[in-house]
Amino acid sequence: MPPPDQSKRSFQAPKGTRDFYPPELLRRRYIEKAWRDTAIRHGFEEIDGPTFEHTELYTVKSGEAILGEVFNVFSGKDQEQVKEAAGGRAPYALRPEFTPTLARMYAAQAGSLPKPTKWFWQQNCFRAERPQRGRLREFGQWNVDFLGGDESAESRAAADSEVIATCAALLRTTGLKVGEVIIKVCDRRLIASLGLIASRIGMAEATLFDLLDRRSKMEPNKFADLASSAGLDIDALDHNAVLASKYTRGELTVSDFRPKFHSDYGDEYCRNWELDFAPLFAVEQAIARSEVGEWCQLDFSVVRGLAYYTGMVFEVHEASGAERAIAGGGRYDNLIELFGGPPTPAVGFGMGDVVLSNILQDKGLMPEGRALLDRLSEPGASLRPDVFVISNGQPESDAALRPLVADLRRKNLHARHTYKTTKNIGKLLKEASDAHARFGAIIESAAEATLKDLETGTQEKVPLAAIADRAKRP
Amino acid sequence: MPPPDQSKRSFQAPKGTRDFYPPELLRRRYIEKAWRDTAIRHGFEEIDGPTFEHTELYTVKSGEAILGEVFNVFSGKDQEQVKEAAGGRAPYALRPEFTPTLARMYAAQAGSLPKPTKWFWQQNCFRAERPQRGRLREFGQWNVDFLGGDESAESRAAADSEVIATCAALLRTTGLKVGEVIIKVCDRRLIASLGLIASRIGMAEATLFDLLDRRSKMEPNKFADLASSAGLDIDALDHNAVLASKYTRGELTVSDFRPKFHSDYGDEYCRNWELDFAPLFAVEQAIARSEVGEWCQLDFSVVRGLAYYTGMVFEVHEASGAERAIAGGGRYDNLIELFGGPPTPAVGFGMGDVVLSNILQDKGLMPEGRALLDRLSEPGASLRPDVFVISNGQPESDAALRPLVADLRRKNLHARHTYKTTKNIGKLLKEASDAHARFGAIIESAAEATLKDLETGTQEKVPLAAIADRAKRP
Repeated sequence: MPPPDQSKRSFQAPKGTRDFYPPELLRRRYIEKAWRDTAIRHGFEEIDGPTFEHTELYTVKSGEAILGEVFNVFSGKDQEQVKEAAGGRAPYALRPEFTPTLARMYAAQAGSLPKPTKWFWQQNCFRAERPQRGRLREFGQWNVDFLGGDESAESRAAADSEVIATCAALLRTTGLKVGEVIIKVCDRRLIASLGLIASRIGMAEATLFDLLDRRSKMEPNKFADLASSAGLDIDALDHNAVLASKYTRGELTVSDFRPKFHSDYGDEYCRNWELDFAPLFAVEQAIARSEVGEWCQLDFSVVRGLAYYTGMVFEVHEASGAERAIAGGGRYDNLIELFGGPPTPAVGFGMGDVVLSNILQDKGLMPEGRALLDRLSEPGASLRPDVFVISNGQPESDAALRPLVADLRRKNLHARHTYKTTKNIGKLLKEASDAHARFGAIIESAAEATLKDLETGTQEKVPLAAIADRAKRP
Repeated sequence: MPPPDQSKRSFQAPKGTRDFYPPELLRRRYIEKAWRDTAIRHGFEEIDGPTFEHTELYTVKSGEAILGEVFNVFSGKDQEQVKEAAGGRAPYALRPEFTPTLARMYAAQAGSLPKPTKWFWQQNCFRAERPQRGRLREFGQWNVDFLGGDESAESRAAADSEVIATCAALLRTTGLKVGEVIIKVCDRRLIASLGLIASRIGMAEATLFDLLDRRSKMEPNKFADLASSAGLDIDALDHNAVLASKYTRGELTVSDFRPKFHSDYGDEYCRNWELDFAPLFAVEQAIARSEVGEWCQLDFSVVRGLAYYTGMVFEVHEASGAERAIAGGGRYDNLIELFGGPPTPAVGFGMGDVVLSNILQDKGLMPEGRALLDRLSEPGASLRPDVFVISNGQPESDAALRPLVADLRRKNLHARHTYKTTKNIGKLLKEASDAHARFGAIIESAAEATLKDLETGTQEKVPLAAIADRAKRP
């Protein structure tokens, strides 16, 4: 077999990965900063772990099926590892998600960690899937998790609502409005009792679950067809089945979560279907208390497809439904134990950067230019140059330029100068403005400069040694 | 062959990688912030690329030898890739360094990028090497690169010095002092002409280079033995050879870079050895202009072992020499062309987090506790809680607690409350202090709280609605 033609692919990024030139990098930092600030304000502390883990860490949580979706990793130096890889299974995998690392880390230190432990994490994950809109092979991910602490139903509901409130706060921070995105909430235990519905409407339980899981990815017509071909005759059902058919057609899913569901459907629905809504009502009340209920809706379609959820589950979607999920999470009270830790109540969610970024850009919510630089600047360094230093072209001014720039930088200012040969001060002031500099400093002599405020246009003569103080940000 | 025992390794981080619990993560963020702030103040803009690249990207720069040191990556979903991996060579590799990605990105957009282009990058790299002090398999890395622009010798020297000045600024920012760490500077072209020395002292050129490259890792005696066994009879040499033997014994390497080398050795050395010191003197002068010369020394041992350097090279070492290099870099004028771009002058360096972190901690320069939280706090979110909210234990105060916390967070404050059941206000104020909160707010009624400044101890009664304003950071 001839070796694959490698000359063509060498100088491109691997499919499904991204190059971030400075403008793209700033947009990514904007999202990362919104994530980090939101998590910190809500009392979560940041952690991190390895970019690759032992492959077993992922199969323990997700089963062998995950092997087809991970990027395998092995050391070229270790003959044992090369042999293993040749057998089709590498010893390591690039993390497809962070939760197994979090569970491993929590389990290893459970005895000495605070109760509860509130952690967030934001780095990249990797999936060997076909790239498409909203889904890449390498993507940024934000995880927020609330672990341990009191096990009462009320405390769990409070933790659930705190995690949902953190998610809602992130959405609000980015400028998204209630109604533009929806936090769809359900409860795994409620979903479980949907088996009852399946039996009453004459559908196999597995078929119903499968339909629920896939519904949001299907055309409504396709879903109706599938439901029908699965043996569900919507129109022929009795009063109870009318409710069920409303549900399968999605009409139950758009009820406003807080006031509407309980009063309009709750009691009757509970009686008719013998469902236990108590856990969901506890979440509902806790969400109401945290005042983010307006972002939430009850939605039975939120199955989350992941076996390890044990209670409340939620997904965040753009209202039109045109995009993949912005975020998803829920309660996973059994997971820490699976990784060798003590029984530990836990709830959390993950949010990727790709879908969120698409939505913010589509809605014009991604700041640009000067506004973006201002948003990302920190006390230690302004992304906008504090001072752009210009020589008036005299030899003594030329000689003073680099020492002044060095001095300003040593005083923790962001200082720039031109690398062009032009001596045209108008052109150089334009270069300063284009870089969004706050001040232009035109060196007039070895001792003095004209300091020009590039926003107001005012200017004054100041000694070179006074520029740093004058240009310091408040 | 039985499968390897995988039960033991599943729940540990892979060898040579790190788990970052909140305290370790803060220390990493401290270094990352110092890197980012320094680069921004010097006018560099951040970029990023994929965590893994086509393997050829790395062999193009470093040759096939790099294959033994990278972590190989392949998709388990792609049968072609599995086959390739089974052949011992995977299609992708985790980045062992960022420079090839940078060169690929620059080459792809060279026509439209500013001249010069000043980029920095900080993420993780991966090496399949045996972990030891200062060397891990996954580590943080900061790259600073100055690409393109004017090609004159003076401009190149200015770029060299700007890059070295950025490196020195980072060292200064962390609290390291001149003399505690040394930026050892040399020039590849100078090293090349050392071949002349080799011939005059009767040593094979390759042997001399090999000795130079390995000298810093050897005991002085071992080096002297090797030099001697290579045929170098130090004492039998004439006047010129005395200079050479001073050099091989390391006595020429500790000369103070700026004033000493040129005046004490320069002219005579140049005449005797027919060496071209001009490029080095240009760097020397530019460094002097940028006022970081005090950090630098000329050191012939800086060979950098990497074939792609073309001019100035430097390494940063802790003065005792006990640690691995803190940073290293140099001029690489041919690299962009190698990746399909136009001829492009370029100079840059990389700095890892592991050695720097060890040195800062050993010297007591890593901030801790409240000081560390203050240093890392940003306008958008203080790592120290702004307000720790406490109920006085009355039912109406209990009911007001979570809404107040939610309200403070919505106003972009970092707000916390206890998850403990205790109602003891003294204990709760201690919990607030232990978390380094700035204010404790003890809710006294549905409308009012005692707001206590936890640093000064002063307190006052304020309406709940006024707490956010009162606790806002200046």
